Amino acid sequence: MNRLKKSEAAYIAGFLDADGSIYVQLKPNKTYRFGFQVAPQIVFFQSQKELTHLGTMREMIGGGHLRIRKDGVVEYIIGDIETMRALLKAVKPYLILKKPQADLMIKILDHKAKVKGREEFLLLAGLVDKFKNLNYSKNRKNTLLEVVNRLKSQ
Amino acid sequence: MNRLKKSEAAYIAGFLDADGSIYVQLKPNKTYRFGFQVAPQIVFFQSQKELTHLGTMREMIGGGHLRIRKDGVVEYIIGDIETMRALLKAVKPYLILKKPQADLMIKILDHKAKVKGREEFLLLAGLVDKFKNLNYSKNRKNTLLEVVNRLKSQ
Repeated sequence: MNRLKKSEAAYIAGFLDADGSIYVQLKPNKTYRFGFQVAPQIVFFQSQKELTHLGTMREMIGGGHLRIRKDGVVEYIIGDIETMRALLKAVKPYLILKKPQADLMIKILDHKAKVKGREEFLLLAGLVDKFKNLNYSKNRKNTLLEVVNRLKSQ
Repeated sequence: MNRLKKSEAAYIAGFLDADGSIYVQLKPNKTYRFGFQVAPQIVFFQSQKELTHLGTMREMIGGGHLRIRKDGVVEYIIGDIETMRALLKAVKPYLILKKPQADLMIKILDHKAKVKGREEFLLLAGLVDKFKNLNYSKNRKNTLLEVVNRLKSQ
C-alpha cells in the first residue's frame, strides 16, 4: 500500500463512513483446516458512472481491485490482509461511524495471523461473531455456535 | 459555521464525494423578482439508522438541518448561503469527484449575491444551467431558455 498523507487518510475515512463497508465472513470451506474460511474485506461502493473515481481511489491507496456488479454498482474491494491492516491503521484516527469496526477488524487480522490450534480458531470465530453484531447483520449464518458444532463432529 | 481542522475538512470531502450532493435548482416562484428562485443546497445522505452520525457531522460543521424522508433516508441539508460558501471553500482542496461542482457553486453563490438587474440574473441562470450539465441531470426543467422566455413575456 502507498504511504498516505494525513488528508488522504481523512478523505478515505469520510468516504468509507459514507459509502463503504468493513466486514468479515466465515465461509464454510472444506479445503480449510477448520472447515471455514475467514474472509475479511474493505469495500467502497459507487454507481457505475463513478467507476473512474474508484479507480482514482485505488491509485491513491495502492492495492485492491474493482468489480462491476450486475446491478451496475461498482465495488472497489480490498481483501489482502496486509493492505487492509495498513489502510485501517491509517484511517482509524479519522473514522467516526465505522471506528468500532476498524478497531475490531484490526484485532481479527492480528489474531488470524496467529491461529495455530482449534482454541485459537474458536476465539477468532468469536471475534467474527462480535463483528457481525457491530454491523447489525440480520443474516447471521455461520456463527461461533456452528463452528463449534462442526468442530465437534470432526 | 465552525472553523474546521484540515482533517475534518478532508473527512467531509470524502463523505461528500461518496454520498453527498451539491446542487442548485431554478424554481418558478412568482414572489421572486425575476420569477425564479435560485435554490442551492449541499446534502449528505444516510440510511435512517445512521441518523446519529449525520447529527455528529452537523455538530462538526455547525449549521444546516436534518430531515427524515418518507423512504427512510436521512438528509443533512445545508442551504444557508454563507455556510455553503464557507464549507465549500474549506473542503475544496480535498474534494476529488465533486471538485468541479464545488468550483462552479462558489461562482454561483458569489454571482447570486451581486445580481441587480435582468442581465445579471440571466448570467446566473446560465451558470445554473452549466451546473446541471455537471451533475448529468436528465430532468432539465427551468433552463436558461425558459428564464429568457419568461422574462420576455413580462
